Amino acid sequence: MRDFSQDHSPLALNTATLGHNIDGYGAGWSPEQVIDACAARGYGGIVFWCREIGTRAFEIGERVRAAGLHVAGLCRTPYLIGREAGSDDEIKASIDMASALGAPVLTIVTGGTEPGTLGLEESRKRLTDRVARHAEHAAQNKVKLALEPLNPMFGGNRTCLFTVRDALGICSEVNVPNLGIAVDVYHVWWDRTLPETLKDATGRLFGYHLCDWLENTSHMLLDRGMMGDGVADLKAIRRAVEGAGYDGLCEVEIFSADTWWKRSPDQVLDIIVERFQTVC
Amino acid sequence: MRDFSQDHSPLALNTATLGHNIDGYGAGWSPEQVIDACAARGYGGIVFWCREIGTRAFEIGERVRAAGLHVAGLCRTPYLIGREAGSDDEIKASIDMASALGAPVLTIVTGGTEPGTLGLEESRKRLTDRVARHAEHAAQNKVKLALEPLNPMFGGNRTCLFTVRDALGICSEVNVPNLGIAVDVYHVWWDRTLPETLKDATGRLFGYHLCDWLENTSHMLLDRGMMGDGVADLKAIRRAVEGAGYDGLCEVEIFSADTWWKRSPDQVLDIIVERFQTVC
Repeated sequence: MRDFSQDHSPLALNTATLGHNIDGYGAGWSPEQVIDACAARGYGGIVFWCREIGTRAFEIGERVRAAGLHVAGLCRTPYLIGREAGSDDEIKASIDMASALGAPVLTIVTGGTEPGTLGLEESRKRLTDRVARHAEHAAQNKVKLALEPLNPMFGGNRTCLFTVRDALGICSEVNVPNLGIAVDVYHVWWDRTLPETLKDATGRLFGYHLCDWLENTSHMLLDRGMMGDGVADLKAIRRAVEGAGYDGLCEVEIFSADTWWKRSPDQVLDIIVERFQTVC
Repeated sequence: MRDFSQDHSPLALNTATLGHNIDGYGAGWSPEQVIDACAARGYGGIVFWCREIGTRAFEIGERVRAAGLHVAGLCRTPYLIGREAGSDDEIKASIDMASALGAPVLTIVTGGTEPGTLGLEESRKRLTDRVARHAEHAAQNKVKLALEPLNPMFGGNRTCLFTVRDALGICSEVNVPNLGIAVDVYHVWWDRTLPETLKDATGRLFGYHLCDWLENTSHMLLDRGMMGDGVADLKAIRRAVEGAGYDGLCEVEIFSADTWWKRSPDQVLDIIVERFQTVC
């Protein structure tokens, strides 16, 4: 397992940690401010959300690289299934944005249960079809797609993939090299089968997301913990992830409306470095 | 699979459906009112919560049986692990209450992560020890204990068992005949491995709980759906449960602060019968 205590270059910031994924939250820093603040602290990369990028994908990507950082990824396609699924054009546009930004990976949160269906089988079939179609466009643009399983509390309207095993199932069916998964501590920390399941993920692990699961989680979406403040066994999870061959950036993604989004971004970025070195 | 369309005698009411598990909710009916209303509609049984029973366990049990119903179970022991774990005396008292009530099954929600530990292994070891100890007292009192896995959103402070497989793991380790599991639609509907996992549950299935998972769940604890209003494939789940040999009562347990707890209990009880016959 990699030793982060003396080297935090594998650390990436997901800008959701500063409240950037939702209008009206966070300190409202520009992408340029985020880039400079991460570079000054020796972060290795940044993951952006589409809403920050607008029409400036290439420009922001170049700015990241000029600062000596990697664009680690982009969040995310519109939903592929469920009542709020995006159109093919919208999905393609997110792939094109990732490509222009120079983001190697675009995350997919699948969206929820298909209207008029019960259970998950129909939704997963529809998901498989849509992923297969768009994976081709993504490959042409040198973008990898990462299916992210979500904590089962997000069933119904946000996802139909709840475990790493669920997500790997779609990867097996579609079976193209640019389709893989993202593993997020918040969503998988509880899964006792993770070490065993991740053995089948070698070559498919396109992202590893850090935060913590608070003992008392007060809000499903917006009460994630800073690493070290919760009950997830972060080192054990990373051991399993790296055991499956993952050696990429580790992306800190903390949705936290009442705690971290109220702190100054400078403070938050400092604390992340310290926690990354000590508890991750 | 049993046909409920002409026979709803396997239907049981969990009184939480009328708001009876939390002070200040629901219409505040007495146990006697609930018993009479269920008997009048041909329900097969009732599951109570400790807070309704007080010192009247034997009396209420007799009243249920006099009305031609079964006491299907009692909710629940105090937590066995985690920061809010109950004492041995409190756990024994809940077993004694089940015995006096004539409840064949007492449900266990385990409680959360043990203070000072990360991940789940230590918590599960402590849980196994405590379950083993109290299962003996339960057996002496002819009470079965049913471990209920909860949706992973309840990790941290409420449970360390998230899947049927997790719960069966504890059963295997303790390995006594009066320890089994309860399967609740709300907690397991998302689990694609359920049909396969339940094959290992034969002889261990002590309860099956009905409700639905709403497409848009607004509150982790108190926004369960009425059967037929959500996205769970209720018939597929029951097929798997009955495939594992379950032929007992099916217990409707709907925590619903803003919807069903605001309706009149008479209406709610009528709608349950209709849904039980048509969509379960």
